[in-house]
Amino acid sequence: MANPISSLHIQAIQGIPLIHDGDQLDSIILSSLKSNGVELEDGDIVVVAQKIVSKAEGRLIRLSDVNAGEDATKLAEETEKDPRLVQLILDESTEVVRKKAGVLIVRHNLGHIGANAGIDQSNIENDDEYALLLPSDPDSSAVKLKFQLDSALNVDLGVLIVDSHNRPWRMGTIGGAIGCAGFQVLDDQRGGVDLFDRELKVTLINRADSIAALATLIMGETTEMTPVAVVKGFANDELDGRASEINRPKEEDLFQ
Amino acid sequence: MANPISSLHIQAIQGIPLIHDGDQLDSIILSSLKSNGVELEDGDIVVVAQKIVSKAEGRLIRLSDVNAGEDATKLAEETEKDPRLVQLILDESTEVVRKKAGVLIVRHNLGHIGANAGIDQSNIENDDEYALLLPSDPDSSAVKLKFQLDSALNVDLGVLIVDSHNRPWRMGTIGGAIGCAGFQVLDDQRGGVDLFDRELKVTLINRADSIAALATLIMGETTEMTPVAVVKGFANDELDGRASEINRPKEEDLFQ
Repeated sequence: MANPISSLHIQAIQGIPLIHDGDQLDSIILSSLKSNGVELEDGDIVVVAQKIVSKAEGRLIRLSDVNAGEDATKLAEETEKDPRLVQLILDESTEVVRKKAGVLIVRHNLGHIGANAGIDQSNIENDDEYALLLPSDPDSSAVKLKFQLDSALNVDLGVLIVDSHNRPWRMGTIGGAIGCAGFQVLDDQRGGVDLFDRELKVTLINRADSIAALATLIMGETTEMTPVAVVKGFANDELDGRASEINRPKEEDLFQ
Repeated sequence: MANPISSLHIQAIQGIPLIHDGDQLDSIILSSLKSNGVELEDGDIVVVAQKIVSKAEGRLIRLSDVNAGEDATKLAEETEKDPRLVQLILDESTEVVRKKAGVLIVRHNLGHIGANAGIDQSNIENDDEYALLLPSDPDSSAVKLKFQLDSALNVDLGVLIVDSHNRPWRMGTIGGAIGCAGFQVLDDQRGGVDLFDRELKVTLINRADSIAALATLIMGETTEMTPVAVVKGFANDELDGRASEINRPKEEDLFQ
């Protein structure tokens, strides 16, 4: 079980500049933390929007550089999408799960199921002719950023990379974890007991998604573009998890 | 769009007693807020676990009072569950969406899809022979509690009733909204523009579920039973939404 907490504070970090291919996110975040007057302690979690990780890692693709194949062209017609975008979606995924006009739900190469393989065309500092892919290995991106921030600040942080997710039965997006380092992602209380000493049967709590949800809301509700937030209040429990743990194994999937 | 915010504080409220049928939740919460030294302001959101709302509303059912019919008995065999529990699940739902051993996923009478119609058998102050149903109308429960707390404190609060939810493709539960009053549930940014003045196509943000997720995590990670938390930092935007808005219309459901 995770260490007990009683209160949390979440703060959006203002003044992060627009990010481009090759930018050093660690330096940019460190400098912004300083100008926001935020000091990090062991156990604090730095939440970073997928978008800036992807941009820094050069995952912005010019659509005119993409050649749509036969499958993508056919699927683009069925779903009324740009064939080059559909080609990118197919390249980034292992299978199409559902499709209809305007909707293409796939299993991403990273193992999770979602719309359009997480490819984004909003808030890109160019025009509609670009598409932004997810980081190629966001768990590793989180591990790297944690190492950089920990070393610079001499602390033991968590790093959480988040993206907005649609869900099959609930309206409205919420943030979810796509990259994690330095904190417990799934808190397995199975085998524990409840308040009345009865065995807990199915209590596996997704800490990463729970934090991602509210942090993403705050990052989106601030006046400026705020792709970084800090969560303070979690104890440093020396546990370490990855977002890849969140993917439900395909053999347990009742809805694909 | 919701008003901009830059930081949030979430605090679990300690010392809420075990709740029983007929208890006045408003008085209990007001007294606990006082003993925790928490003063509420306009825009603050009081988050309450479904469990105590259900108990106060007399939704604890003795299984020996339930007669399992033919359908429930057959389904109980298929899913290896107690036939009386299955009868309650069928009574609380409009259709069975998926079933396998140990798993019964239904569309709840309230319109959402989930496991076991949200019926809970853990942390009930009796034994396994009891089951706790969801409140019969949690949006109305939230409206009532908001009215009571607002009147007592002369403030304009949000009230959010939360439950833990499983998801089809992601491991681990996260909290979700089942009852809301006094704040914007879905923030519809469709038709707005992004940072680069391009129209936002699909940005509908679920604020209620985003808040529910982290609040539920905190309520579960405190040392004592803490079925109430307070979120401070949202501006009072005079918008008012209901959790029922979250249910995706059946005709848009690609996965049932």
